[in-house]
Amino acid sequence: MPIRARHLAAVALAVTASAARAELVTRTVEYRQGDTVLEGYLAYDTSGPAKKPGVLVFHQFTGVSGYEKKRAEQLAALGYVAFAADVYGKGVRPTARAEAGAEAGKYRANRPLLRARAQAALAALRQQPNVRSEKVVAIGYCFGGGAALELARSGADVLGVVSFHGSLTTPTPQDAKNIRGKVLVLHGAEDPHAPRADVLALEDELTKGGASWEVVLYSGAVHAFTQPDAGNDRSKGVAYDAQADRRSWERMKDFLDELFAS
Amino acid sequence: MPIRARHLAAVALAVTASAARAELVTRTVEYRQGDTVLEGYLAYDTSGPAKKPGVLVFHQFTGVSGYEKKRAEQLAALGYVAFAADVYGKGVRPTARAEAGAEAGKYRANRPLLRARAQAALAALRQQPNVRSEKVVAIGYCFGGGAALELARSGADVLGVVSFHGSLTTPTPQDAKNIRGKVLVLHGAEDPHAPRADVLALEDELTKGGASWEVVLYSGAVHAFTQPDAGNDRSKGVAYDAQADRRSWERMKDFLDELFAS
Repeated sequence: MPIRARHLAAVALAVTASAARAELVTRTVEYRQGDTVLEGYLAYDTSGPAKKPGVLVFHQFTGVSGYEKKRAEQLAALGYVAFAADVYGKGVRPTARAEAGAEAGKYRANRPLLRARAQAALAALRQQPNVRSEKVVAIGYCFGGGAALELARSGADVLGVVSFHGSLTTPTPQDAKNIRGKVLVLHGAEDPHAPRADVLALEDELTKGGASWEVVLYSGAVHAFTQPDAGNDRSKGVAYDAQADRRSWERMKDFLDELFAS
Repeated sequence: MPIRARHLAAVALAVTASAARAELVTRTVEYRQGDTVLEGYLAYDTSGPAKKPGVLVFHQFTGVSGYEKKRAEQLAALGYVAFAADVYGKGVRPTARAEAGAEAGKYRANRPLLRARAQAALAALRQQPNVRSEKVVAIGYCFGGGAALELARSGADVLGVVSFHGSLTTPTPQDAKNIRGKVLVLHGAEDPHAPRADVLALEDELTKGGASWEVVLYSGAVHAFTQPDAGNDRSKGVAYDAQADRRSWERMKDFLDELFAS
């Protein structure tokens, strides 16, 4: 009994020591697309295996902000190497609504550029020495949900993409045939910025393209439902929804488990 | 150290002993609706708390079968008291497709009777001494998904209802205002028996009624996608889909966690 007991105690101590060693590492990472310098935010935990699956996080229309960094840190805590991608370029961090809309508009109007930026971020994540390069997924919020979808449509080699209240439309729906990963769309049923017609068009696009997809609609949820700073006035079309936020994050976690187990 | 170690070992032994005591109990339960005798199937595990949340399981159009019994047993293993409800009546277990369709049709055409049968099952579950009567949910498959929704529309006091590839239409959409629990609809995007128009109509019905709902669509999935005996020929409109089966079950589990934690 004492020997077995000592063994049990040793296991308990080892677990405690390992937990104490776990440390979140974050840093900015510069990378390029053409001549443009981009600056993303990398987050991972030092515990667990030396190489981990990677998750790209595409930003809202305000560019890389504290919000995307927090999501990257949450993903790091789940055991992934997370990289908050920068579509706009180093230092381009519009905070005013009109300015952010104009910046996002540049990429909505120029999908080849959006795809190039998204692919550059994917390459930057894959180059990290602690990333399992065959196990990479992209997620995105609002504008970034659209970026994740456009990355998939470009034929990028990702296991899947997740859109949270994302922009769903594309000028080239026929490119859905290029999609190589599974698609998960987590969406507010009352989102005025990406309304039901857009959801239905996306479903048709993905079906015609032969993609594996899942669409989840949350009643009452509007745009930006995962964003705590969005307030709670749904009549503005942008508001936080705690239930949809929690459910969509849980759904994403299960989806990542499924993709990375494959 | 020896004392702490002995304590650890004792805990380990207690856990083992508890697991060994856990036992699945199943039995048929007769109950009535009016003059009609109904026969459901009760399943629970003897481990865990003396009183547990309850989950009603409404059957496919073939009536209570091995399929519903297995689902009830799976729910019992999750820590619930599960009751496979009998809408049709004791001994009414149509196996031929035409016969089953005719039987289901009786209740689709007579919603007050369907609601009365569903409410009788709910009462029978609540009467079980090991059920926490304030923590009850209804789920259903195909015909039974419709029964669960109709139970909600009747104003029944359930925390939520879940439809798996269910019949979604109702002659009285205005009754959605009576719904007291949350609604979860897990549905095949290619279900020819409950097509997109039905899904959209349900979403509108639930929104107008002010219900809290979530609709999940699985690409490529047709009717009966959780039913392993349904084969794999999607062109028949009825087929098993392992991915949608697994995802929908996981989603249901999280939903039940959410409801029973409230």
